[in-house]
Amino acid sequence: MTRQQLIKQIFETKSYLCIGLDTDITKIPKHLQTSADGVFKFNKAIIDATKDLCVSYKINTAFYEALGVKGWEAMEKTVNYIPSTHFKIADAKRGDIGNTSSQYAKAFFDTEASGLNFDAITVSPYMGEDSIKPFLEYENKWTIVLGLTSNAGAKDFEMQKISDDIYLYEKVLKEVSKWGTPENLMFVIGATQAQQLSSIRKIIPDNFLLIPGIGAQGGSLKEVSKSAMTKDCGLLVNISREIIYASGKENFAEAAKKVAENYQKEMEVYLRKN
Amino acid sequence: MTRQQLIKQIFETKSYLCIGLDTDITKIPKHLQTSADGVFKFNKAIIDATKDLCVSYKINTAFYEALGVKGWEAMEKTVNYIPSTHFKIADAKRGDIGNTSSQYAKAFFDTEASGLNFDAITVSPYMGEDSIKPFLEYENKWTIVLGLTSNAGAKDFEMQKISDDIYLYEKVLKEVSKWGTPENLMFVIGATQAQQLSSIRKIIPDNFLLIPGIGAQGGSLKEVSKSAMTKDCGLLVNISREIIYASGKENFAEAAKKVAENYQKEMEVYLRKN
Repeated sequence: MTRQQLIKQIFETKSYLCIGLDTDITKIPKHLQTSADGVFKFNKAIIDATKDLCVSYKINTAFYEALGVKGWEAMEKTVNYIPSTHFKIADAKRGDIGNTSSQYAKAFFDTEASGLNFDAITVSPYMGEDSIKPFLEYENKWTIVLGLTSNAGAKDFEMQKISDDIYLYEKVLKEVSKWGTPENLMFVIGATQAQQLSSIRKIIPDNFLLIPGIGAQGGSLKEVSKSAMTKDCGLLVNISREIIYASGKENFAEAAKKVAENYQKEMEVYLRKN
Repeated sequence: MTRQQLIKQIFETKSYLCIGLDTDITKIPKHLQTSADGVFKFNKAIIDATKDLCVSYKINTAFYEALGVKGWEAMEKTVNYIPSTHFKIADAKRGDIGNTSSQYAKAFFDTEASGLNFDAITVSPYMGEDSIKPFLEYENKWTIVLGLTSNAGAKDFEMQKISDDIYLYEKVLKEVSKWGTPENLMFVIGATQAQQLSSIRKIIPDNFLLIPGIGAQGGSLKEVSKSAMTKDCGLLVNISREIIYASGKENFAEAAKKVAENYQKEMEVYLRKN
């Protein structure tokens, strides 16, 4: 998916909502817990109920890998079920030396080789340029690099000052943004760090940001939208647990739809003001 | 596997060789390239030929994921085929917020859930403590955290100075070593950086190091062993391509055995001198 297609989707749907399919087999309704295929059935119902309210789905690979081969199958079925109008993110946090990152890129982008057809993958920057470049080489695919994350551990390394008096995550944004363009490179910026968003926008004015941490992790949609929205929107705000586990009962999809709808309505207001 | 069991294996086998099963379906002999199961058959032949010469196998997950569901199956068959005497590493470079890292730990350590029974997993430190802790909670399992890697990109962030005048990778070694013990925590240290090994040993005198970068990437076994071996050995030296692709013909396993044997013989000398 190109940047223009994504922007068009956002303004047509009046939403920059990404729904996180962190589908934990122990947390879905009891009648679906019997097999990994229940995870796919759960996702299918969530997608059917919410697809008019969001522009993206993010599949957290960990929850599928935890079920082994059957889980990987459920992931494949899920990504293939997501409509082609939606931006499909593999939240996989991969990254390794060049020849290995090439294989990860193949795994998530090269449908013929792997059966998976994601538009984007999240990548860790620790190992530097050659660990990220292989992902950037795929046309119309996106690399979403970890900048500042929303967890407590962000303080351990990401928020350490490096010698020229900037934080490590700022160095990451500065360097990595030279390796790609706003047409193929986004960054993960945790919403619990909203006070930093304005200064982050000075470093990367045009790149889309994937924002986790709103809802369950405490970030505010209003603050994030005010501080970091660009004329092209430039935001994908991810909500996972608050939407997909809105109800633990058989009405889970309907309940998920209601929460997604509230977010979409709020987003519509911020897009209009923009 | 416990630390004592690993040390016992090393001194009995007279080897601290880890063989990297970075098995690329396009690089194995033609007659095995027809399906993902050929990857398993290739690995099986390599394991049969080399198991008396090494103490560990490292499976690079990227090469399996690139083949989709069938690749994940080949990985499961491979890890189950490795003898229980051998230390089984998932070279997966995972790491995410706590609840997600718990799922990755389940994927690679909890055989009942996922079918995989690795002894260890490689993890990226970028996201800090809560991204690493869930792996450390498994008894007799190991977390191998990226310290200083062997690729060119190591200079981009790992080798950046942070404010108290140490490199980022040194900060990582200092901090992360507090979160685990030498009984459950190792570090990846690239052999191309052998000049740093002595100072690294001052920070982490007792932790095992997993050393990539010897062979194809240019590091020297002699230098590494001289600079970083401890009384318990404390090293796992990984060789991948030089062993598994020693021959592209039907005699690949025999050829792999010869290269592994040369490494084992050299290691025996260094262990004896120790």
